[in-house]
Amino acid sequence: MSEATRVKNTGLRGVTVADSAISFIDGEKGVLIYRGYRIEDLADHSSFMETAFLLLFGTLPTGEQLEGFTGQVKGMRQVPPYVLESMRHWPKDARPMDVLQASVPLLAMAEQHSDTMDRDVCLQRSIGLLAQMPTLVAAWHRIRTGQPVLEPDPDLDHAANFLWMLQGKKPDAATAHDLDVCLILHADHTFNASTFAAREVVSTRASLYAGVAAGLGALSGSLHGGANAKVMEMLLKLENEPDVEGWVKKQLSEGDRIMGMGHAIYKTGDPRAVYLKKMGQRLGEKTGGKWASISQRIEQTALAIFAERGKTTILPNVDFNSAPVYYLMGIPTDLMTPVFAVSRVAGWCAHIIEEQFADAQGKPALYRPQAQYVGEYCGLMGCEYSPVNKRE
Amino acid sequence: MSEATRVKNTGLRGVTVADSAISFIDGEKGVLIYRGYRIEDLADHSSFMETAFLLLFGTLPTGEQLEGFTGQVKGMRQVPPYVLESMRHWPKDARPMDVLQASVPLLAMAEQHSDTMDRDVCLQRSIGLLAQMPTLVAAWHRIRTGQPVLEPDPDLDHAANFLWMLQGKKPDAATAHDLDVCLILHADHTFNASTFAAREVVSTRASLYAGVAAGLGALSGSLHGGANAKVMEMLLKLENEPDVEGWVKKQLSEGDRIMGMGHAIYKTGDPRAVYLKKMGQRLGEKTGGKWASISQRIEQTALAIFAERGKTTILPNVDFNSAPVYYLMGIPTDLMTPVFAVSRVAGWCAHIIEEQFADAQGKPALYRPQAQYVGEYCGLMGCEYSPVNKRE
Repeated sequence: MSEATRVKNTGLRGVTVADSAISFIDGEKGVLIYRGYRIEDLADHSSFMETAFLLLFGTLPTGEQLEGFTGQVKGMRQVPPYVLESMRHWPKDARPMDVLQASVPLLAMAEQHSDTMDRDVCLQRSIGLLAQMPTLVAAWHRIRTGQPVLEPDPDLDHAANFLWMLQGKKPDAATAHDLDVCLILHADHTFNASTFAAREVVSTRASLYAGVAAGLGALSGSLHGGANAKVMEMLLKLENEPDVEGWVKKQLSEGDRIMGMGHAIYKTGDPRAVYLKKMGQRLGEKTGGKWASISQRIEQTALAIFAERGKTTILPNVDFNSAPVYYLMGIPTDLMTPVFAVSRVAGWCAHIIEEQFADAQGKPALYRPQAQYVGEYCGLMGCEYSPVNKRE
Repeated sequence: MSEATRVKNTGLRGVTVADSAISFIDGEKGVLIYRGYRIEDLADHSSFMETAFLLLFGTLPTGEQLEGFTGQVKGMRQVPPYVLESMRHWPKDARPMDVLQASVPLLAMAEQHSDTMDRDVCLQRSIGLLAQMPTLVAAWHRIRTGQPVLEPDPDLDHAANFLWMLQGKKPDAATAHDLDVCLILHADHTFNASTFAAREVVSTRASLYAGVAAGLGALSGSLHGGANAKVMEMLLKLENEPDVEGWVKKQLSEGDRIMGMGHAIYKTGDPRAVYLKKMGQRLGEKTGGKWASISQRIEQTALAIFAERGKTTILPNVDFNSAPVYYLMGIPTDLMTPVFAVSRVAGWCAHIIEEQFADAQGKPALYRPQAQYVGEYCGLMGCEYSPVNKRE
């Protein structure tokens, strides 16, 4: 009982709920590892396709495997026509994360036995979701802005093709590469809220699609993937603010949070944030430097105040530094969280497959925790039910 | 660390993760209580509208409150036209739970600020979801079978109106009342997998709709809400089987499970199952008795075998006895899980509101558990990355 009490109302922070072979975080040392490899190495040397293969299949692909995998993804980029037909009926001001959460179950409808427990079929469908997530985001943006939906271009890699389908012009190689690196950095992160939601949902033997849709729901929250858009809203608000420092001080003195600061796990720095900060500075210099400068002023002021308060573990997280990067790539603010999903779908699918097909020994059971009842209680026979006309 | 190990790969069974004032289970004594009241009392004396009010607002309604609430629900039964327009494009053989999971985010699109943190707005939207869930199920069934979608009838109560919209004829009072009782019995069940998924998703500050959509995803799994349809498939398979006992013995001797037997919490009987068994027997007698008889033979044979094996805690659960009841009401097998959702949405919404608006002291944090990394590990510097052309 004392143990049960210990985990109560803590959001399961620090509670180990399962084995996983997919990713590893050392929050004290600021290390993130996918399947053994540091994300810095993957970001420097691999591609998002390689990283997605690594997450799904457990090893880096050989040349032949990578070619086959990339070909499969390219071949599965189209979404069924009824998905686009449906989208044309939706309110143009719908939140894009709601659009994605609706669209993934629509993809399930194209499959016979969408809840199959066949591992190979689930891997194939994971490749399909990886291929189709960018198409869904881009198609919705084209439809809501009254522009024609564009066909995927098989000559373009994953990130470049996404920007093409979204913006209708082929990105330069440097921009496509930067986005590809962003996708690598966001692809997995152990049992974060969306991944845990996806695993929890499929622990009932619900479908891969049901799990991914739940992941999208959790990601949409402003304390999770929704944070990058909130960071950008903050930066845009401060675009013409002469006294950024004063704004940060006022915000913190009133007990408000600075979006993009702090992380549940990283206490000495988020390695993804470190990587993205450099990218943002480079991109910022190319385009005038404004966002890098505003970010830097927010960061310096906030960190100084946190230091005064003795809170040295609140540091910029991945969202703080990804937002200006996406903005400089021309990605609209409300599509920043969907771009996170374009990447994270690789991790969700890997985790769903691990959850559903772990060997018997390590196989997690259906998630079914308990709550401590703190409500009305009149004993096991229940409170006396009075008829409605006798109530006051 | 020993504690962390203890909860690993157990699906958080027996782990108390939060306070909740909504429902209470005594698994040893077979008791289920909503907000202080035993479900038997609610099933005998209240209506689903009363019970839903109780779950959402915490107390049984006065006559005036009940009238106001029922009127609100009746007034919100229509779904936006674009939802029906979209459905007309979807594959006719889509799984109805995929349809619901797609449709709830579509409802979110009609709302400004679908992720608002305003408690009153969330309560209003909960009433809307309660009203619209039956409409979604019925409308999809009419569309997939090529029949016109029917308008809700404000003269009919919740259950009766659902059967009218689904079947195109007004049910007799006894059938409508039986379905209403089924909805009461399924409306909440503490931190089951779907409710926990809904709470987990909104702990990120995702929207009420995102939480309900995640709940639908979890409910669809065959180890959770999907079980009632699996029970019915079993019963239909055994409809003309002369040797039901032999089939059960063979099934169990081969290590297969009997659908609808056993529960994670109830060890001496599921009070909902007990209630529904009587209803099924009564309905069965009215209509020839076949299903009650097959169910009884399965139950007796299975319980005898479990007793021989010393497993006296595996007993028929709610799904075992709800399936034949729904069948006798003319509800198609693949709509049985959606009917579960028509009821459980009351509990999901109550839990989502509790999760998002609990007072500061009891407020649960964002769910963010840990996993024990059991994958490839080459130390904190990571495994050596070799270029793709060097890999074998």
